[in-house]
Amino acid sequence: MMLIDKTVQGFITELASDSSAPGGGSVAALSASLGGALAIMVCRLTVNSEKHAAVHTEMAAVLNQAQAVTASLTRYIDEDTQAFNQVMAAYKLPKATDAEKQARSQKIQESTKQATILPLQVAEEALKVMELAAKTLEYGNPHAASDAAVAGLMAYAGLRGALYNVAINLPGIKDQAFADNVRAKAAAVRQQADKLNQQLESIGKEKLD
Amino acid sequence: MMLIDKTVQGFITELASDSSAPGGGSVAALSASLGGALAIMVCRLTVNSEKHAAVHTEMAAVLNQAQAVTASLTRYIDEDTQAFNQVMAAYKLPKATDAEKQARSQKIQESTKQATILPLQVAEEALKVMELAAKTLEYGNPHAASDAAVAGLMAYAGLRGALYNVAINLPGIKDQAFADNVRAKAAAVRQQADKLNQQLESIGKEKLD
Repeated sequence: MMLIDKTVQGFITELASDSSAPGGGSVAALSASLGGALAIMVCRLTVNSEKHAAVHTEMAAVLNQAQAVTASLTRYIDEDTQAFNQVMAAYKLPKATDAEKQARSQKIQESTKQATILPLQVAEEALKVMELAAKTLEYGNPHAASDAAVAGLMAYAGLRGALYNVAINLPGIKDQAFADNVRAKAAAVRQQADKLNQQLESIGKEKLD
Repeated sequence: MMLIDKTVQGFITELASDSSAPGGGSVAALSASLGGALAIMVCRLTVNSEKHAAVHTEMAAVLNQAQAVTASLTRYIDEDTQAFNQVMAAYKLPKATDAEKQARSQKIQESTKQATILPLQVAEEALKVMELAAKTLEYGNPHAASDAAVAGLMAYAGLRGALYNVAINLPGIKDQAFADNVRAKAAAVRQQADKLNQQLESIGKEKLD
């Protein structure tokens, strides 16, 4: 059964269980998906209201982008757990002969790379959600300002969470060029996210405090 | 149908719909619940491992507290949306006569107070999750360090999101003593949360970077 087909209560219960999967990687993707869904809602509550006609074109564009990125992020909820399970499976491969050892080692490396790239992609998509959330907070229906602000928070938490999942996998990767490339990309995403987070916080203060 | 009985995909879809409810308040409670569930998982992955026998007593205590607070936070996912719906219902009450106007105004005030107290309670419970997440990150199974770090992020995002929901409701409350009391409590929670967030970030850096 896919994680997104479980009930919310069922997902929370399975998360809390003594199995490592699902874990923080799937939660990070879910968090960013929730942010995207809230951004979509704020767009709809804006384009549906004649009072906000001046921003309809802009908000309709944000709505389209938010729908695409949220659909993609929602897929990562399951994909992250699948990638983690692949790593676990690789570690359980036989290692009696040299050939087995080599095949196992290769599978561990391949699956760990995949389990590192996936959360990096989640972080990159969560960054897009942060940008869209900032637009909904700035120009969207002010009655939904707290929803737009929460959209930004969920995207940022998802992004940071995804980067923690990148970080925990990096030391296991032997391909240093690959690891350095991922590290550089992760650092760039983090820098942009921290800047956007400050912007979101300052607009949120202005609109809500 | 309760929100927690919807599938994860169904919840995301309903969140994105053009109805204001569910919105950021329920997402804030869900975020903190996810943080609590991850903290529980890390506790279990620690008390199940002989290698970490030195921290079993401490982690078992954290596990108990995390279970209680997560169960409570999960209830707020639906309660927040119900409280919001009560406010909407109050605004729709008839206002043709003076008696109706007075009854409507009283219902608006009562329901708005309730819709302000609930997210404040979510924020206070999310603060507990942050404290527990910090312990799991510091003393828990290091294989689950990213999960513990994500637990802290989700709790902090939930807390901040809940406080945005407090903030958007406060201007509608006429009882200034009530509003001032809520504002002071919210500020105190925020201050503690920001401090804990910095601690979580610095332990996360040490364990994962």
